[in-house]
Amino acid sequence: MSHKIILIGADQPALDAVLSYKRTTPDATATVLYPECNPLAEFSCVTLDSFMGNGIDFPENLRACAIAPEDKTVMVRDNFTGEESHLEYDTLIFATGSAPAPLDVPGSFLSGIRRVGDYNDATRLTAAEGTNVVIGDGLNLLLAIARLLDDAVGTIEVIPSSIPQACKPLGDAMTAMVLHHLTQKGVIIHTGETLKAIEGTNRANRVLTDKRTIEAARIINATSNIPVTCMVKDAGLDLDTTGHILVDDNLKAADSIYACGGCASFISPACAKPIPGASVKSTEPRQSRTLAASLAGTSQPFHAPVCAYSIPMGDMTVAGAGLSMEGAKECGFTPMSAMVVQFDRAHFMPEASLMTLELVFDAQTRRVVGIQGLGQSGDALAGRISAVSALLASHPTVEDIANLEVAYSPPFASAMDILNTAGNVAENILSGSNEGIDPLEFDTLWQNRESNEYFFLDCREFGNAEPFLERHPLHWNTIPQGEIARRVAEVPRDKKVILICNSGARSYEAQVCLKAAGIEDVVNVDGGMVAIKQSGVEI
Amino acid sequence: MSHKIILIGADQPALDAVLSYKRTTPDATATVLYPECNPLAEFSCVTLDSFMGNGIDFPENLRACAIAPEDKTVMVRDNFTGEESHLEYDTLIFATGSAPAPLDVPGSFLSGIRRVGDYNDATRLTAAEGTNVVIGDGLNLLLAIARLLDDAVGTIEVIPSSIPQACKPLGDAMTAMVLHHLTQKGVIIHTGETLKAIEGTNRANRVLTDKRTIEAARIINATSNIPVTCMVKDAGLDLDTTGHILVDDNLKAADSIYACGGCASFISPACAKPIPGASVKSTEPRQSRTLAASLAGTSQPFHAPVCAYSIPMGDMTVAGAGLSMEGAKECGFTPMSAMVVQFDRAHFMPEASLMTLELVFDAQTRRVVGIQGLGQSGDALAGRISAVSALLASHPTVEDIANLEVAYSPPFASAMDILNTAGNVAENILSGSNEGIDPLEFDTLWQNRESNEYFFLDCREFGNAEPFLERHPLHWNTIPQGEIARRVAEVPRDKKVILICNSGARSYEAQVCLKAAGIEDVVNVDGGMVAIKQSGVEI
Repeated sequence: MSHKIILIGADQPALDAVLSYKRTTPDATATVLYPECNPLAEFSCVTLDSFMGNGIDFPENLRACAIAPEDKTVMVRDNFTGEESHLEYDTLIFATGSAPAPLDVPGSFLSGIRRVGDYNDATRLTAAEGTNVVIGDGLNLLLAIARLLDDAVGTIEVIPSSIPQACKPLGDAMTAMVLHHLTQKGVIIHTGETLKAIEGTNRANRVLTDKRTIEAARIINATSNIPVTCMVKDAGLDLDTTGHILVDDNLKAADSIYACGGCASFISPACAKPIPGASVKSTEPRQSRTLAASLAGTSQPFHAPVCAYSIPMGDMTVAGAGLSMEGAKECGFTPMSAMVVQFDRAHFMPEASLMTLELVFDAQTRRVVGIQGLGQSGDALAGRISAVSALLASHPTVEDIANLEVAYSPPFASAMDILNTAGNVAENILSGSNEGIDPLEFDTLWQNRESNEYFFLDCREFGNAEPFLERHPLHWNTIPQGEIARRVAEVPRDKKVILICNSGARSYEAQVCLKAAGIEDVVNVDGGMVAIKQSGVEI
Repeated sequence: MSHKIILIGADQPALDAVLSYKRTTPDATATVLYPECNPLAEFSCVTLDSFMGNGIDFPENLRACAIAPEDKTVMVRDNFTGEESHLEYDTLIFATGSAPAPLDVPGSFLSGIRRVGDYNDATRLTAAEGTNVVIGDGLNLLLAIARLLDDAVGTIEVIPSSIPQACKPLGDAMTAMVLHHLTQKGVIIHTGETLKAIEGTNRANRVLTDKRTIEAARIINATSNIPVTCMVKDAGLDLDTTGHILVDDNLKAADSIYACGGCASFISPACAKPIPGASVKSTEPRQSRTLAASLAGTSQPFHAPVCAYSIPMGDMTVAGAGLSMEGAKECGFTPMSAMVVQFDRAHFMPEASLMTLELVFDAQTRRVVGIQGLGQSGDALAGRISAVSALLASHPTVEDIANLEVAYSPPFASAMDILNTAGNVAENILSGSNEGIDPLEFDTLWQNRESNEYFFLDCREFGNAEPFLERHPLHWNTIPQGEIARRVAEVPRDKKVILICNSGARSYEAQVCLKAAGIEDVVNVDGGMVAIKQSGVEI
């Protein structure tokens, strides 16, 4: 008897798995049904075209309305005749996918609002002349802005929607850097405003917040994804706290029932919480492989994703894997982070450019739980993130990153690669020898400079420090790092010392010197002037 | 009492460690001595300049002649006066480095022969107008050729010297690809010739092999490195089989004696054998950190290197980590390899270019022991190699590579990244569903096509196959992969079927189809026509 497979929805990994399974089991039958209860699932329809005629049946008129797991049947209704019938299955697969959260304001169902819920959506997006308004958060927001920047048509205004901290792809310090970069590219960001309504007669063409009205040529919904799982409770399946279908590592949800793609729950190995959907797109081929094995009665366990992504935003790429500082906090870690700035290859290579990395680790266990980065060379940045991503599932320590061996020669890495530096800085932070602050914390202290509680000490050579000395003769001080040991008497012992250099490396050396001389209240600006400048902090 | 440190030699990681240690222990004293017994150690001298005046003493006239570990003294002789004396130490560090093996032929000590023993040497090398003759092997040879190609001056002729298989950075199939690439760049390679002599009156300017005489404008010795360890037995230290000083993971060789840099032995975690010197240059900062900790009486264990490298050779980069097929054989593994060709990012990105990877794994344990690759985008290739390099020390399986999550978006990776493909192909090879041959094995079969024992089947679309059909109507056959299931009767059952497509992906699908139809004697050309063409194999 042939193996009867029914798919609810047509998310890519399920279709791929069925096709792969049918190559070795040609007499298996497969039928795709869309659920009656949620028309959003039809958005996946575009992916189906390429699978037609490959032995997957797609009765377009039929809608699945109910599942009876005890009989292994799905009740279907004909969309035109209203006629009901039952289809039997040996295996049922939920592949209903996910969709961006609907904008919960008046007018949110007006036509013409574009959705960006994954890389494919972003690829299909084009910028309009006039104002492009993007409403959203997380990776979907970055993807939408990246695509619009690439088109270089019209202007871009952004209304960030709030998302849970655990889902934020970047920590606060790096978010500030990305926002500053976008602002420099002409993107207008309405931080702290609340979306109130979308208006338009035939099509959506106006966006109202609590502070302004924007006439919009194009409106894009790039909120975080929510899973489409309307028939799931019916089938007696369990959902996680964010509404995704719980599956085991064979993607099994219950007896003879599987789930994969955007509707399925993958618990991140970096965190015992579900992770946002868009960033797991790259794991779909592996989900497909696991599901094909399950269909064949064997096992190819799926490794839960660490959400490694890399998004080019104009001439700067943003990338990351695992948890940000804020996400790690929500997951119950005691996170600390090491922010480093360094050239992406040997400094003497003409194509060397600066890269910024933030390594997130747990203070209790020394375990690395995430990494985020910015850089001009996207391939070079993606390579560093991939190397850490490869390790994340096996719970690396900061020592593992300090010792990680990147593929070296001067055109591609420094002998002391930026990843190793990040690991070393993390070790120094954990040992207490490096007490760092990020550019935003520096800004808070600098804004308060008139209090005279702080001694801002520039450890670069005099030529670099001079313009700042001239601008702030009362608050800026300079002793080159190499001279600090013998000029330590010039450093006051009754103020908090804030050490600044170009990248954070020399100021750390200075910190070691000062501590050896008994000056303990010293902090070092991680990433130095480069990070300060990248964050848009003015001195 | 201050800590007295004596360094024999001045290899970089030892100097860095001492400087780092002196920052927290300023009253420690450090003296650098060169060994009398081997003037080669003086080659390291250039690195010393930048450390002078930082509290490291360098009595230029003194040469170390003997060590008495029981008294913790070094006997030194003044180079000019001949006067002998004894210097006491608390800690002795061997930092004598390594040097390319001397060319063991008449004339090999003539002046003017340039050495390339590491990345620094290569950086300092320039090409001469006229003929540049490079004699050497392994990574040093690649580094020297890369540098000369970059200069684009004169011509390059290469006399490969033979090295142990375990030290070959690339397997045979990939070596063929690199040689073909170099040949296309105009490099002349005298494979199989033996160096007989070097001649010249004042300077070396003629190279003699058993087959030719080459008038040379520049002669470069790029043989593999040998450690400089002439005083070591004297100190009662143990050497490994290749003459490097055995150290533990704190870099300790014996009581109060340490070694690091080119003279020290690091056992690769991928193989219980020592690994060649040049490729561990990037681990020097980490050796320095370990040694500094040891000097301070704490411990920062050094992780043995996996030799990850990445060398740009004109418009193609060669990179790798861990063992090649041949190296893995010598180390006692039962190695197999998966060769894959795929775009380095989503195929629709305009900057997409082809990458070739060879994943080396053990058939018994499924353990991945190495990876090598070629590609036009060096950063993209280095990123893939770094991701596998990060895992190598923890003994990944092919499944770990199949599930490795690279930083994804279409501009930087395919959803099914080439690394995941390599892992999947390896799984398919181990399960027996993919029986592959490499381009060199294909060439052997193709040369023997008149035997009529083989059925060469092109699975690409007709348009791709047509030129080969026209050229070889008797030996070339075509059935597009999508049609194979229903045209299986056209495939003979009494011949070995050799399947070819563009990259090896469709021919694997065809292989699965044919096996399902009971045709068992089928092989698939890994990497397909791309790999065949890259290897210079003519069809």
